[in-house]
Amino acid sequence: MTYAREMLDSHPGTVAVDADALVECIEACFDCAESCSACADACLGEEEVSQLRRCITMCLNCSDVCAMTGRVVSRQTEFEPAMARAALQGCAEACRLCAEECETHAQEMNMEHCRVCAEACRRCERACSDALSAVGA
Amino acid sequence: MTYAREMLDSHPGTVAVDADALVECIEACFDCAESCSACADACLGEEEVSQLRRCITMCLNCSDVCAMTGRVVSRQTEFEPAMARAALQGCAEACRLCAEECETHAQEMNMEHCRVCAEACRRCERACSDALSAVGA
Amino acid sequence: MTYAREMLDSHPGTVAVDADALVECIEACFDCAESCSACADACLGEEEVSQLRRCITMCLNCSDVCAMTGRVVSRQTEFEPAMARAALQGCAEACRLCAEECETHAQEMNMEHCRVCAEACRRCERACSDALSAVGA
Amino acid sequence: MTYAREMLDSHPGTVAVDADALVECIEACFDCAESCSACADACLGEEEVSQLRRCITMCLNCSDVCAMTGRVVSRQTEFEPAMARAALQGCAEACRLCAEECETHAQEMNMEHCRVCAEACRRCERACSDALSAVGA
Repeated sequence: MTYAREMLDSHPGTVAVDADALVECIEACFDCAESCSACADACLGEEEVSQLRRCITMCLNCSDVCAMTGRVVSRQTEFEPAMARAALQGCAEACRLCAEECETHAQEMNMEHCRVCAEACRRCERACSDALSAVGA
Repeated sequence: MTYAREMLDSHPGTVAVDADALVECIEACFDCAESCSACADACLGEEEVSQLRRCITMCLNCSDVCAMTGRVVSRQTEFEPAMARAALQGCAEACRLCAEECETHAQEMNMEHCRVCAEACRRCERACSDALSAVGA
Repeated sequence: MTYAREMLDSHPGTVAVDADALVECIEACFDCAESCSACADACLGEEEVSQLRRCITMCLNCSDVCAMTGRVVSRQTEFEPAMARAALQGCAEACRLCAEECETHAQEMNMEHCRVCAEACRRCERACSDALSAVGA
Repeated sequence: MTYAREMLDSHPGTVAVDADALVECIEACFDCAESCSACADACLGEEEVSQLRRCITMCLNCSDVCAMTGRVVSRQTEFEPAMARAALQGCAEACRLCAEECETHAQEMNMEHCRVCAEACRRCERACSDALSAVGA
């Protein structure tokens, strides 16, 4: 059992949205924040760094957005659907943009860190969309 | 002259959006991230903390969203309008929600830190809307 | 296999410190950032919130420190031992302080979210100490 | 008057350390978080990006450390000197390392964004040292 599940199960209040969707979303956000920060660093270390500027920027942006979203949706004491929706929509979009960029380099430049990062981004994009449905659009 | 203006003026590339709107947005985001984090702490220190749960949550959320947005819009090397729009829309919404909450406590409970924080939030809401227009919706 | 391990294995450069210690540290930092943010929110939702002010503050601080440290130590392209040491020392201290506070409430007030959070903090404190040894003090 | 000063003056509790040193430290941290994030982006946009890998890494690290420190020291409700010291020491070190790196590029490569960023780092290094004295080592 992960911390996100345990923390949610021990919350004193009523959790406002479907717990499974929420747990998956929180974990996907923190994992993606980690992967994107690491992928920006790995891209910076590549010999072809000058061809990876857009990838580094997308990864830094996506890492910041995911870290923010993971925190916002895990705050359940005074859950505000309008706030959650804004965060989740932005995060799904950031993950989509970053995944597209990383997938290009995974395929064309055979970069394994971009392949792993794209996987983390696609999972997070899906988890944010599912959480968005759970919150109610 | 502020750092945000100097950093933008010395950027090696072409800045993708109106510089005045961008500088004001970057500064408003970092200032609001600071004010909201401080207001959450001040609310926590009030005797009536149990009546301020929603305010603390809105402030923590808004601080996280503003810190993220300030970074995303200041990245100009590979500026992606879709990413900027998602961040700015979410930030304007977070600032509006937090301002409304803080304004209530400024008026009804006479809380000066909420009055100052609401001012920072309204300024940032406006700056994000203006930057959004500059990016093109 | 976790993303942290896969990202490290696919890094283009030489990883500067023991990979096992590094992976455990990165994962512990991101997990603890998540747990501490959630525990601050859960404490805020408790009826006895006025007795939990110190716990909320320690959790917010620890979450910020862990999020920062997880990113700093995962940057391996231009790894700077002095920077890593400063981050790891601060993080071990933040985790120790937060764990002590949460352990008190887990025991005296029977708060399950504090018990889980203390566990995440102690794991992260240990992982930072081990990573510190791996970097070389 | 800045928000940091107004927020501190309206805090319901007693501020634990010298207010002037604290306000300067909070503002310097948020300004430096902003400048370092912008300098990493500007360096990424330079033609000689492959010579600026260390500068980009130091800037990303310093931005994360400053953002964390600005929040930690602004939390005055349950101020914990040991936590403040750990954050301030780490931040002074991060700022020193980043300033040294940026100063090199300001001089040798005539990079204006590195000159501005080094200035923000040196100011923040000094503000953290002064706040550290105010907290008591």
